[in-house]
Amino acid sequence: MDRRSIIKQAGIAGILAAGAAPAVHAQAAIRWRLASSFPKALDTIFGTAEVFAKQVSDMTGGKFQISVHAGGELMPAFGVVDGVQNASVEMAHTAPYYFYGKDPTFSLGCAVPFGMNARQMDAWTNEGNGFKLLREFYAKYNIVHFAGGNTGAQMGGWFRKEIKSVADLKGLKFRTNPFAGKVLEPFGVVPQSIPGADLYPALEKGTIDALEWVGPYDDQKLGFNKVAPFYYYPGWWEGGPQLHFYINDKAWNALPAEYKAIVQAASAYANTSMLAKYDARNPIALKQLVGSGTKLRPFPQDVMTAAFKSAQKIFAELSDTNPEWKKMYGDYSKFLASVNAWFRYTEGTYDRFMQSQKL
Amino acid sequence: MDRRSIIKQAGIAGILAAGAAPAVHAQAAIRWRLASSFPKALDTIFGTAEVFAKQVSDMTGGKFQISVHAGGELMPAFGVVDGVQNASVEMAHTAPYYFYGKDPTFSLGCAVPFGMNARQMDAWTNEGNGFKLLREFYAKYNIVHFAGGNTGAQMGGWFRKEIKSVADLKGLKFRTNPFAGKVLEPFGVVPQSIPGADLYPALEKGTIDALEWVGPYDDQKLGFNKVAPFYYYPGWWEGGPQLHFYINDKAWNALPAEYKAIVQAASAYANTSMLAKYDARNPIALKQLVGSGTKLRPFPQDVMTAAFKSAQKIFAELSDTNPEWKKMYGDYSKFLASVNAWFRYTEGTYDRFMQSQKL
Repeated sequence: MDRRSIIKQAGIAGILAAGAAPAVHAQAAIRWRLASSFPKALDTIFGTAEVFAKQVSDMTGGKFQISVHAGGELMPAFGVVDGVQNASVEMAHTAPYYFYGKDPTFSLGCAVPFGMNARQMDAWTNEGNGFKLLREFYAKYNIVHFAGGNTGAQMGGWFRKEIKSVADLKGLKFRTNPFAGKVLEPFGVVPQSIPGADLYPALEKGTIDALEWVGPYDDQKLGFNKVAPFYYYPGWWEGGPQLHFYINDKAWNALPAEYKAIVQAASAYANTSMLAKYDARNPIALKQLVGSGTKLRPFPQDVMTAAFKSAQKIFAELSDTNPEWKKMYGDYSKFLASVNAWFRYTEGTYDRFMQSQKL
Repeated sequence: MDRRSIIKQAGIAGILAAGAAPAVHAQAAIRWRLASSFPKALDTIFGTAEVFAKQVSDMTGGKFQISVHAGGELMPAFGVVDGVQNASVEMAHTAPYYFYGKDPTFSLGCAVPFGMNARQMDAWTNEGNGFKLLREFYAKYNIVHFAGGNTGAQMGGWFRKEIKSVADLKGLKFRTNPFAGKVLEPFGVVPQSIPGADLYPALEKGTIDALEWVGPYDDQKLGFNKVAPFYYYPGWWEGGPQLHFYINDKAWNALPAEYKAIVQAASAYANTSMLAKYDARNPIALKQLVGSGTKLRPFPQDVMTAAFKSAQKIFAELSDTNPEWKKMYGDYSKFLASVNAWFRYTEGTYDRFMQSQKL
C-alpha cells in the first residue's frame, strides 16, 4: 500500500465533516443515583465514586449524570446490596466483604485473609475467571459490577499493648472485619464490631484493646496514634481489597451500548486512581506518625503462621458447606497459587532488593 | 429531604425522554492512525493499542475510529516520536525508553535501572507530579501522552553460561537496553543492540552470550530456552516499564472535550488490561519453561549491588549535564524514596509472607 496516499486520506486533518444523522441513543439524557457505603471523611474511598461519576459526565458531555450520596444519606451504609437489588438506586459503591454475613462468598470479590494483593486482584478479575464468576454470583442480587478501587495492603491496626506472640492475643478485644475475627477467635481474640465514628472513644476508654481501620492516611485523620502506641503490619485480612461498583441489572440493560462501554472505562479509571492516591498519600502520613512517636511493629511470625493456618481451615470448612463459596474459591485459590509462584521470582526479588536500599 | 420523593423523581426509570438538541461535536466522526513500535508477535503489548482503540470506538458508537498499525508498517518502529511530532500520524504506542538516545529523560516516563515498579509508576504519574512533568517534557516533541500499559518487572534474561559474580560479567556480549548497557559497561559487559527478529540465531550461534527480551510469556514464544539454559531475574533495568500513548498535540486539541475524556479513560482501561494479561500469563509460561529444564537463577547479590551503585553514579552525572533529566529525576527519585519507604512495611511484608507459603 502506498504510504503517501494513506497519509493523504487519513492524516492529521482526519476530522470528517459533522452532519451524519446522529444516533438517537447517543443523546439519551440519563440520571442515576449512587449510594456509597462510605462516609465523606474517607475522602479517598468516597471520592472514588465522585471520580467515576465525573468521568462518566465528562465522556458524555454531561448527558449521563450520576449523583453520589454518602453512606446513610439514602439508605444505611450496609444496605446498598438491598438498595441496588430492589432498584431503590441504580448503583452503589461498596466493599463487598461488608456482606460476609449475607454470604462469605462476597468477600472473594474484595479480600479474604491471606488472599490476593491489589495487582493480583486486577489480574484475576480482568484476565482470570474472576469477573465472570462474580457476575454469575451477583446475578441473584440483580447486580452487575465493576472493580471500583483498592486501598492496597492495609495496616494491621492500633494496639494499646505490644503483641509478642500468639499468647498475647488471648482475651484481646479487637475491632476488625468479621472474617479476620473468625480467623483470630481460636486464639482467644474477642472480635468487636463498632461503627467508624465510635472507634476513637472506644480505644481511648479501653472498651476495646485494639482496632484496625485502613492505613496511615485515613488512620492519621482519626488520631488513633494519640491513644495507642503500637501500629502493626501487615493487615493480612486485606492484602489488596478491591471495591466494587454495583449496578442494578435492569438499569444496566437499559443503557445504550456506548454508555455501557463508558461505565466500564470510567470504572477502570477510578479503580487505578484510588490505589494511586493511597500509594502517594500513605507514605507521607506514615512518616509523620512515626515522627510523632508511633511504634511500628510487624506481627510476630508465629501470629502470621497461626492465622494463616486458621484461615485455610475456615476456607476448607466453607467449601464443605457453601457451594457458591466452593465454586468461586476453587478458581480464586488456583489463580492465587499460580500468580504467587510467579511473583516470588522477578517481581518479589526486585521489590525486596529495592526495599532494602536506602534511597 | 423526603427520601420517597427523591426515589420517585430519580428512581430506576431515570432515563429521560430523548430529544434534546444533540451537541454537534458529539457526533463528529473522527479517524486516526496509531503507529505502534511493536510487532504483532508481541500480542500482549501490541494488543494493548487494539484494546485502547476498540474501547474508544465502543464508547463513541464507532464515530471515533483509530486504526492500529504494527511497527514498521507506517514508519520504523523507533520512528514514532518523529512521526507524531511531524503529524504523519495522530498517535503512537511505544516504550519511551526506546528514545534514550534522543534524551535519557524519556526513560523516566518508562523505566530506569532500579526505578519504580508498575504500581509505583501509576502512583507517580496519577497522583505525584509525573504526569505534569512528562507533559511539559513532551511538549517540545508536540506530544500529549497517556499511560499505555506495563509488563511488570521483567526478567533478567537468558544466559548461555552461569553468572556467579561480577567477575563473570567481564567480556560478556549482552543484548539489552542502552541504559542497562551503560550501567554494566564498567564491569566489562559489551552491550549489544540487535532487533528482535535476529535474537534467536544470535544467541544460538554464540554471536552474543546473553540477551533479555521481556518475560516468560513472550520469551517462551521465541524459544530462547532451547539455546540458553540459565534464566536470570530480576530485570533490574525495568522493574515496571510504563508504555505510553503519544498523541500529536494539534490532533489532541482538535478533539471535543467528550472525546478527550474518552481517550483518557480508554488509556486507563488499556493500561490495567496489559499488566493483568502479563500477570495471568507469565506464571503459566514460567512453569512450563522450568518444567522443560530451564534453570531459574537470581542475579548474585554482588551483581545487584554493583549495578545499583553504577546506576546511581550515572543518574548523578546526568543530573550534572542534562537540565531536563535533572528536573524530572529530582521529582522521580524523591517520589521513589517516599513510596519505597512505605512499600517496605505493610505491602512488602504481606507479599514476602505470601511468597514464602506453598499454596
